[in-house]
Amino acid sequence: MIEGQTSGTKTPKLRYGMVGGGQGAFIGGVHRKAVAMDGKAEIVCGAFSQSYDNTLATGDTVGLPRERLYRTFEDMIQTEAGRPDRPDFISVVTPNSTHYAAAKLALDHGFAVVCEKPLATSSSDAADLARLVREKDILFCVTYAYSGYPMVKHIRDIIARGELGEIRFVNGEYPQEWLATKLEETGQKQAAWRTDPKLAGASNCVGDIGSHIEFMVGHMTGLVIESLCARLDRFGPGRPLDDNATVMVNFKGGATGVYWSSQVAPGHDNALRLRIYGTKGAVEWFQETPNTARVSFLDRPIGFLSRGRDPMSPRAQSLSRLPSGHPEGYFEGFANIYSTFITALAKKLRGEALTADDLDFPGVEEGVQGVKYIEKCVESSAKGAIWVGME
Amino acid sequence: MIEGQTSGTKTPKLRYGMVGGGQGAFIGGVHRKAVAMDGKAEIVCGAFSQSYDNTLATGDTVGLPRERLYRTFEDMIQTEAGRPDRPDFISVVTPNSTHYAAAKLALDHGFAVVCEKPLATSSSDAADLARLVREKDILFCVTYAYSGYPMVKHIRDIIARGELGEIRFVNGEYPQEWLATKLEETGQKQAAWRTDPKLAGASNCVGDIGSHIEFMVGHMTGLVIESLCARLDRFGPGRPLDDNATVMVNFKGGATGVYWSSQVAPGHDNALRLRIYGTKGAVEWFQETPNTARVSFLDRPIGFLSRGRDPMSPRAQSLSRLPSGHPEGYFEGFANIYSTFITALAKKLRGEALTADDLDFPGVEEGVQGVKYIEKCVESSAKGAIWVGME
Amino acid sequence: MIEGQTSGTKTPKLRYGMVGGGQGAFIGGVHRKAVAMDGKAEIVCGAFSQSYDNTLATGDTVGLPRERLYRTFEDMIQTEAGRPDRPDFISVVTPNSTHYAAAKLALDHGFAVVCEKPLATSSSDAADLARLVREKDILFCVTYAYSGYPMVKHIRDIIARGELGEIRFVNGEYPQEWLATKLEETGQKQAAWRTDPKLAGASNCVGDIGSHIEFMVGHMTGLVIESLCARLDRFGPGRPLDDNATVMVNFKGGATGVYWSSQVAPGHDNALRLRIYGTKGAVEWFQETPNTARVSFLDRPIGFLSRGRDPMSPRAQSLSRLPSGHPEGYFEGFANIYSTFITALAKKLRGEALTADDLDFPGVEEGVQGVKYIEKCVESSAKGAIWVGME
Amino acid sequence: MIEGQTSGTKTPKLRYGMVGGGQGAFIGGVHRKAVAMDGKAEIVCGAFSQSYDNTLATGDTVGLPRERLYRTFEDMIQTEAGRPDRPDFISVVTPNSTHYAAAKLALDHGFAVVCEKPLATSSSDAADLARLVREKDILFCVTYAYSGYPMVKHIRDIIARGELGEIRFVNGEYPQEWLATKLEETGQKQAAWRTDPKLAGASNCVGDIGSHIEFMVGHMTGLVIESLCARLDRFGPGRPLDDNATVMVNFKGGATGVYWSSQVAPGHDNALRLRIYGTKGAVEWFQETPNTARVSFLDRPIGFLSRGRDPMSPRAQSLSRLPSGHPEGYFEGFANIYSTFITALAKKLRGEALTADDLDFPGVEEGVQGVKYIEKCVESSAKGAIWVGME
Repeated sequence: MIEGQTSGTKTPKLRYGMVGGGQGAFIGGVHRKAVAMDGKAEIVCGAFSQSYDNTLATGDTVGLPRERLYRTFEDMIQTEAGRPDRPDFISVVTPNSTHYAAAKLALDHGFAVVCEKPLATSSSDAADLARLVREKDILFCVTYAYSGYPMVKHIRDIIARGELGEIRFVNGEYPQEWLATKLEETGQKQAAWRTDPKLAGASNCVGDIGSHIEFMVGHMTGLVIESLCARLDRFGPGRPLDDNATVMVNFKGGATGVYWSSQVAPGHDNALRLRIYGTKGAVEWFQETPNTARVSFLDRPIGFLSRGRDPMSPRAQSLSRLPSGHPEGYFEGFANIYSTFITALAKKLRGEALTADDLDFPGVEEGVQGVKYIEKCVESSAKGAIWVGME
Repeated sequence: MIEGQTSGTKTPKLRYGMVGGGQGAFIGGVHRKAVAMDGKAEIVCGAFSQSYDNTLATGDTVGLPRERLYRTFEDMIQTEAGRPDRPDFISVVTPNSTHYAAAKLALDHGFAVVCEKPLATSSSDAADLARLVREKDILFCVTYAYSGYPMVKHIRDIIARGELGEIRFVNGEYPQEWLATKLEETGQKQAAWRTDPKLAGASNCVGDIGSHIEFMVGHMTGLVIESLCARLDRFGPGRPLDDNATVMVNFKGGATGVYWSSQVAPGHDNALRLRIYGTKGAVEWFQETPNTARVSFLDRPIGFLSRGRDPMSPRAQSLSRLPSGHPEGYFEGFANIYSTFITALAKKLRGEALTADDLDFPGVEEGVQGVKYIEKCVESSAKGAIWVGME
Repeated sequence: MIEGQTSGTKTPKLRYGMVGGGQGAFIGGVHRKAVAMDGKAEIVCGAFSQSYDNTLATGDTVGLPRERLYRTFEDMIQTEAGRPDRPDFISVVTPNSTHYAAAKLALDHGFAVVCEKPLATSSSDAADLARLVREKDILFCVTYAYSGYPMVKHIRDIIARGELGEIRFVNGEYPQEWLATKLEETGQKQAAWRTDPKLAGASNCVGDIGSHIEFMVGHMTGLVIESLCARLDRFGPGRPLDDNATVMVNFKGGATGVYWSSQVAPGHDNALRLRIYGTKGAVEWFQETPNTARVSFLDRPIGFLSRGRDPMSPRAQSLSRLPSGHPEGYFEGFANIYSTFITALAKKLRGEALTADDLDFPGVEEGVQGVKYIEKCVESSAKGAIWVGME
Repeated sequence: MIEGQTSGTKTPKLRYGMVGGGQGAFIGGVHRKAVAMDGKAEIVCGAFSQSYDNTLATGDTVGLPRERLYRTFEDMIQTEAGRPDRPDFISVVTPNSTHYAAAKLALDHGFAVVCEKPLATSSSDAADLARLVREKDILFCVTYAYSGYPMVKHIRDIIARGELGEIRFVNGEYPQEWLATKLEETGQKQAAWRTDPKLAGASNCVGDIGSHIEFMVGHMTGLVIESLCARLDRFGPGRPLDDNATVMVNFKGGATGVYWSSQVAPGHDNALRLRIYGTKGAVEWFQETPNTARVSFLDRPIGFLSRGRDPMSPRAQSLSRLPSGHPEGYFEGFANIYSTFITALAKKLRGEALTADDLDFPGVEEGVQGVKYIEKCVESSAKGAIWVGME
């Protein structure tokens, strides 16, 4: 057990409410379990589904009293805002099309917000949220989940220290196989909303998984996309949205990259793989084995870093709960994002100043950037896969 | 989110107390976090350390009131036994030499028990605990943690279905590197007690990690060791206990195997690897990438099973919390053992009958067998690595 | 030993001459050793270098008499053409800029030709060679070496049988690290000519390694590129030619792909990796472990094919020299190309008809296509990475 | 092309004859192709099979005139000994039971010898050959093929330099699957002789593949076995010889090891894997990917050595024919043994002194040791898997 990573804390637990995440959904349960792991906050209210029956059933399972289960998120946010034991933050885990409205209402009522990515379905909506966050000085977290892995932070830190030299090229990919057949026609809920423009927005594949590449590369390298050229494919017969996407990116300063995401690639589950090449060395990280990384320097043998075995940057170490060789997984990475956010929020509520490490979770600005990236990919592809600028 | 794996439950949470697991220890915190993940029980009292200051500090972090923090486990068990809100079970996570006394006292006072492995430092003590468990009809769990991984259950189930044919040979290994130097002389607490016969018992390497091989092979294959020939090495200069061990085993029915464990093998973290060879096929599982398994049949290409992607046995599926490609790790495996145990205990407390799946956690009999295995290895080695029967 | 793959043959050996391949070169020695392995032809003359001293030294090592060592390839081809024991074919293994002239002169004198890739430095030159080959009905082989691996043929054959369904997407990559620093400034001969437009032609990275991706994908899938969008980077300061290249390709019929090649990617040697995704399954092949392939079908576990262990297509099997588990490498793959070419040439010389399997080596048409691909990549990139058609 | 590794040589080729290696055999063809690759010797005569028809057919394929094809090896050796163009050495590639007689006769007639392993079927026969070799001062090579890989030599050299510290433990294994069913009953020639005591000697599995582990560990580490405890299993119903073997070994000086070999392990081809653990570091080498090695030091990340990429010891470098990333395989390793032997023999014939590197091929003493190892394994197992000394 790493010091400071304990299963409880003497600080009073924060309270949170949840919008979305009813039975049949996927990510809502992940959020709840990730919070529970560290015990720094407890759920107190929910509007889990457009089906009130689902909300009630979910609330029962979660252990909430009926009076804090709501038919709509509007009802929940407005009602809870008036309670003396009102939540400290609201988690928004609905399909994409509801992110904006729910997050905005929560901000309007002064709640801190944790929101699933993509932040919104238009960059103007996203920018509106960012404006509100700035004006009201509220903490806002966008759950780009993979940034919570300790090894990701370690890689970010060794790049920042210049160990790889100047970054020249990035190869990011995220293939999946689950939509190789038209799963959305079988009633599978996850497939249905992601392939429906009304719920997912203008993109399926880039919005759902391509945006993870965009965020992760920026997070780990600090590189900023200047322009891009995107080809969005729709291989599933009759699909209105993309299920495969190739994007060439030019970064400010001269580095380049290529991002490939796919939901129709047999043999892949959540195969997010990031390879970053600098003048002195390179690093490769694979989400499915997140405790390790391949590092290559020109002047020594290829190496495999192991979380815990090899010295980690202080920030990475602080997010590690187990010694080397005992794998940490997706929940632990997710929990790190929540744990950082909740700790920061608690400090803010106590009036303490926040450090850079306190704020080391994906924020609203990254969320805005992510939405703009999706829009630009869609725009580029629609115009024949031409180059478009990001500003 | 897999149906049925939710972050809470409407059933009232069970209560538990903990012996051991203070600050500086490793496994106690894992136990607490594993329980917290599923929210089916909450900690209510503790005697975390022989240092009362440590117990108080740990209790603060965990969030326990001072009146339920105790100087000794005897005090805790006796006092708590009389409370109306007494714990439903006691978790024993001390160094090996205290397992017996703490578990026995808990059983004597009618508590269900979760105990770290090895169950005791002598087979007579272990047998005594088993006798008590039978006489008092109490649930008892020994935390052979690796048996909680869904893929382990799936492998067990495909072997039971005969898919590999008749098992001929088993190769089990568990190398580590952490004691390649004399870490125990640096004040590292984990190293110090494991290499001290007074705290660890008659074996370090076999007791700590070799016993995992023994349990896991039995659990996955059903094979029973008939005789063994063990060579225990002490490579660390001056070490009183083994830090490397090779064991040839003969199973009842004609299968054979070899088990190697080591704490002085550079390049390995917790590299428990089990390879099981049958007449029709074979399987390989590696603890550090627990979501996958290599399967080999004579009549088709080598395959790699992926948890979630490939159809799993119902029991394995029920222990899986995430879709394929999102790695589950050590905490989730550990949580599965607790979740199964707590669910069974709750059913028992409600007077319901328990099924085989309800009881699918390592029990006291496996614990007894494990202690006997350690003893026989020590005996064989001491006599010159001769064959001894397991009777 | 697979039947039919013997170290000699009762058929009289063919004779060949070589242009290029002197000491300090790389690929010429590979050609000679690949021919020697199967003993179907023997070298009889050479113009190995622009340095006559080098030619003499190389000729000594190879064991050629001085009168068959020539100062220029023109001298060699013209002189040897008049000998009664003239070579049956000429191997051209010079830097790119000489391929055309040497191959053309050989064809003009009626020699069959084996030529390194790329076939020429302009598509008009390449087309001219193809015209000559057709007019004179001469056998011509372009040594795209990686197509000689048995597993490559097997993959081609399972794709042709439709086992992967309809191909949707191809991801091809070939990263290397050797030019991450400016090796060409150290006098390293391989680096010097490849980065010099006068010797390499209009492209370094695409010409040298990107063209392998282009050929291999076409060879294995039968897909034909309709248009492409290429971004060629020059990361080495002051380099006149590309050392990193990303190419989006659209195939006729709707499939798409992305090709990345790099010589500045730390951590990679000759990491040619091809991933081909169809509607029913996918396959991945990696040049550095050429005896295996990863195959994925939606309805079964991920599989790893092993050359020799798993049933291979007849053509693949015929190119395999060893049982499974004994690795075959680059020489053996190369030897397969020569062995096929020489066997076909011997049959042709005997007046026998040639089958499709006889002609299963890369020919002049593939060479022409390869040169056109390089030209179109250069053109696309020069115009700002816009889409250009291949015809 | 590495300097000095050329496809020919101006030195006159040596001549050799072959005993065994007819059509349907495996290893004879490997020997011939390995010699051909470097062109330093040529085959001039053969007694390839007990079937004269087979010898004639093989001789035709190899390209030998009929007068140098013999009905028996006795006839060949006696006749050829009298020719002015007699062979410089004889290669013995028969089943085990003929090694001694053929090698002895060749030595008696003054021929240098290359002999397959195991050297003989009894240690007294083996010792007799060693005596003859010493008395007559003749070069003798036993083809433990895997010692020819460059990476094996490199590992040997880094161990000799003390980079791993003092060796503590060795884990060697060589599992195969090919005899999981009773292949010998199908007429498969390789299986038939290996499982027949009359042709294979007292052991199948240890003799055929276990002996590779024994030799390779000694070759790479210099460790000498002091005593061993072997359990030989016969899993194939009715098999007279072992098809699976586990051997615990104690080395002189205190290191220990365990060797496992199997022919009934589904999922393995020629999976020779050697792991060597020292006080400061460890190394792992796997025959199926022979160009790389895993190296682990306590004070740095796990590394993967790549032949050619990473600096190699001079001897290892001299045996490498290709740059990094172009895989060398089994033939190249085999060719290195022949190339070293032939070069040494040519020097000896010219009266030059031989260096340690000249003699860096497995010799008759290693062959004797190998036979003794097999005998001791059989003896230990027959007595109930007790410890026996190697004296």
